[in-house]
Amino acid sequence: MTIPTSTNLARSDGGTPLHVVVVGGGLGGLSAAISCTLAGHKVTVLEQAAQLGEVGAGIQLTPNVTRLLRSWGVYDELRGSAVEPGNIWFRRWETGAPIGVTRLVPHFAAAFGAPYWVVHRAHLHEALVGRARALGATVEVQWRIESVDFDAPSVTTADGRVVRGDIVVGCDGLKSVTRRFFLGGEDPGPRETRFCAYRSTVPMAALRADPELRGLVEKPDLHLWIGHERHVMSYPISGGETFNMVLSHPHEGPVDPAATQEQLIAEMRQHYEGWDPKLTKIIRLIDKTSKWKLMGYERLKSWVHPNGTYVILGDACHAMLPYMSQGAAMAMEDAAALGRVLARASGPKDLPALTQLFADIRMDRAYEVQGRSALNGRIWHYPDGEDQRARDAGMAATLTGEHYIRSTNQWSDPSTQIWLYNHDAEGDTDRFLDTRLGTKTAPKSGVQEMREMGLLM
Amino acid sequence: MTIPTSTNLARSDGGTPLHVVVVGGGLGGLSAAISCTLAGHKVTVLEQAAQLGEVGAGIQLTPNVTRLLRSWGVYDELRGSAVEPGNIWFRRWETGAPIGVTRLVPHFAAAFGAPYWVVHRAHLHEALVGRARALGATVEVQWRIESVDFDAPSVTTADGRVVRGDIVVGCDGLKSVTRRFFLGGEDPGPRETRFCAYRSTVPMAALRADPELRGLVEKPDLHLWIGHERHVMSYPISGGETFNMVLSHPHEGPVDPAATQEQLIAEMRQHYEGWDPKLTKIIRLIDKTSKWKLMGYERLKSWVHPNGTYVILGDACHAMLPYMSQGAAMAMEDAAALGRVLARASGPKDLPALTQLFADIRMDRAYEVQGRSALNGRIWHYPDGEDQRARDAGMAATLTGEHYIRSTNQWSDPSTQIWLYNHDAEGDTDRFLDTRLGTKTAPKSGVQEMREMGLLM
Repeated sequence: MTIPTSTNLARSDGGTPLHVVVVGGGLGGLSAAISCTLAGHKVTVLEQAAQLGEVGAGIQLTPNVTRLLRSWGVYDELRGSAVEPGNIWFRRWETGAPIGVTRLVPHFAAAFGAPYWVVHRAHLHEALVGRARALGATVEVQWRIESVDFDAPSVTTADGRVVRGDIVVGCDGLKSVTRRFFLGGEDPGPRETRFCAYRSTVPMAALRADPELRGLVEKPDLHLWIGHERHVMSYPISGGETFNMVLSHPHEGPVDPAATQEQLIAEMRQHYEGWDPKLTKIIRLIDKTSKWKLMGYERLKSWVHPNGTYVILGDACHAMLPYMSQGAAMAMEDAAALGRVLARASGPKDLPALTQLFADIRMDRAYEVQGRSALNGRIWHYPDGEDQRARDAGMAATLTGEHYIRSTNQWSDPSTQIWLYNHDAEGDTDRFLDTRLGTKTAPKSGVQEMREMGLLM
Repeated sequence: MTIPTSTNLARSDGGTPLHVVVVGGGLGGLSAAISCTLAGHKVTVLEQAAQLGEVGAGIQLTPNVTRLLRSWGVYDELRGSAVEPGNIWFRRWETGAPIGVTRLVPHFAAAFGAPYWVVHRAHLHEALVGRARALGATVEVQWRIESVDFDAPSVTTADGRVVRGDIVVGCDGLKSVTRRFFLGGEDPGPRETRFCAYRSTVPMAALRADPELRGLVEKPDLHLWIGHERHVMSYPISGGETFNMVLSHPHEGPVDPAATQEQLIAEMRQHYEGWDPKLTKIIRLIDKTSKWKLMGYERLKSWVHPNGTYVILGDACHAMLPYMSQGAAMAMEDAAALGRVLARASGPKDLPALTQLFADIRMDRAYEVQGRSALNGRIWHYPDGEDQRARDAGMAATLTGEHYIRSTNQWSDPSTQIWLYNHDAEGDTDRFLDTRLGTKTAPKSGVQEMREMGLLM
């Protein structure tokens, strides 16, 4: 595989490289750095923290993301620490009995041309930093931006350091500062959802040592227990040596910052009392956890400044419930699309029109994914009863191998799969731009057209 | 089943009934008459011909249409003459060997809650006329409209007869006169496609009498032979007593109006020379045919007059290749949506905003279906080679019963199925209007929400 570099793509059209100032060195910001350097631009990433890094343990990388990692030259480096799970088991809260299953191996890689991975967030972050720098991006820490000037455009820190560029990309997450300036006084800030999540890891060795639990982790599968108001998502990370768990539960209001580990763990056990004995046994192995308030952002009217000098992406504009495992995925897709859009810029004068096209291709998709994530938060959390029985029946066909055209398991629902996992944030953006900019050419072959229409793998 | 009547729905909100003037008494116009009377309005249908009726023999009614027929109270009357085919067989041109199959019974009715029917166009037309009149619509013949006044609004015949109303609905098909007035001097008129089609019927008795052909028509299935530049679609109509055939082939330019039956039949046989011996044997049984130029309309910028006194629907704005069997279906969906939109009108003052919503919900869908029909015209017509082999492999799973998430047979492609056949032009319009007009309420139950999202039957 030839990995494209910024050099071999750089402004082959003779346009002037832009200086892209990326605010935020998280997964979205680093992805934007990679995609924009690959598009031939100069990129400076400004991270507020003193050290680069990611909070949290595991992250699921669906084919719409691993496809990008491959295109960006990050895939091979991550492959070593990535786990490719075989299945996602949907389990009944009380018994752990399978309600449905999503077959990931071999189905997903075969069906979408890119695998389903679970990795440690730190590994992903590290790989992205390395690649961004190798492509020539500057990645700086201790740049806490305090103001944005959309006319210059420039960003400024509290101690008066200024970076000017042609465009500022706000990848500064849930607590985005650039967003505040972009929206002026109109930012209502993130909205608390009704949910919190405990995040914990358990050494896989502890599970393997227990004869009752061993079977559950023999294969590197994901297990999702769903019940009234609560669910537990779990999967192996770090090459299979760590069992990663996210335990979602209802909680109104903010998290008590003074809560001790003892209190959190006692509360966590209580939340899942009466659930599958295997699950509660695993929960009893947890000796450390963190509790997170799950936050969301309402749809913004726009993601771009009218003069083309600012775009916002990722959590800063579409923070969502993690119930489709698409939070970082959408930020990375945003970044990929931005790179393809900016690849068409011959200079700053093109930015107002091009950034609007970026918003046009991304906004509906990102907010639809946000909505589908919230939908899982309803579908998974029915109390036992009519809705729950219909849901369970609606994903039963995934267990038998018979053909089905709908599923209440959105990971397995064919229309959702094609829409979500078949999306190529680079290729589809290119085609969208071709259509909108009048540069579209007919598909080269029938095979290509059937593929672009999602009818053929 | 309680069939709604115009009386029990009529303006329960106390609004003023509109006078809806429908130009054109074809399938779209009569459907509009039904949907608008059901919405509580007064409807006058003006048909130019001296007699009501439909040209052509068979028509396929997919679940998105039979769903409407049921809602309109037309279903039970048609059921007697409708044929419910079991399968659509996609066959290789040369041998007739199955390439793929779409399972209609029991799959379609079970999957979409409404059956797949094939009927005689005349029977459908008759049932719609009867229902429209029973609901109180006036249906007049010999009204050849020569001009439209969008301010009055009114329509006028050559001999000076005038009908005034609150809104004019242009359902006047490919040769639409109202369209010409709507577009002013800017109408390029319909575009000739590269295709013509012969339409013929053969008495089923003749096929049953032939031992070689009997097997093909033992069950009431559809058979579609596909090959380079040509295909033949066939199915039983008229309660199974007539074998209906549409034979599509390339033909540049208009049809020669002087061509004799002998010439047409000789030419038809030549087109399918070397095809499946069973097919050519059937073609030799054809002693009468008509040849049609297949025409299309480019996307219009709008379907509604800015002052809300005119909308266009059906072939007049989206004539398409018949390769998805959705030409009349889209006209009937247009009509259904129009009825639901006008159900919200408390008087003529609401029309500018409401008709725009009608265009908003219908235009993208109708033109996407038009595009997918043209796509079938490419997919089906590959010469033998790489594209053809990929296409055939891409629908092979339909023959084995194994699970698949994509298909190069658009009748069987799950995403296409949900999008096309699951659509409820009434219910989905209601929900769209609720969203846009701010009258949306939360789904009543989880089951309802999963259904609305297309995840549950």
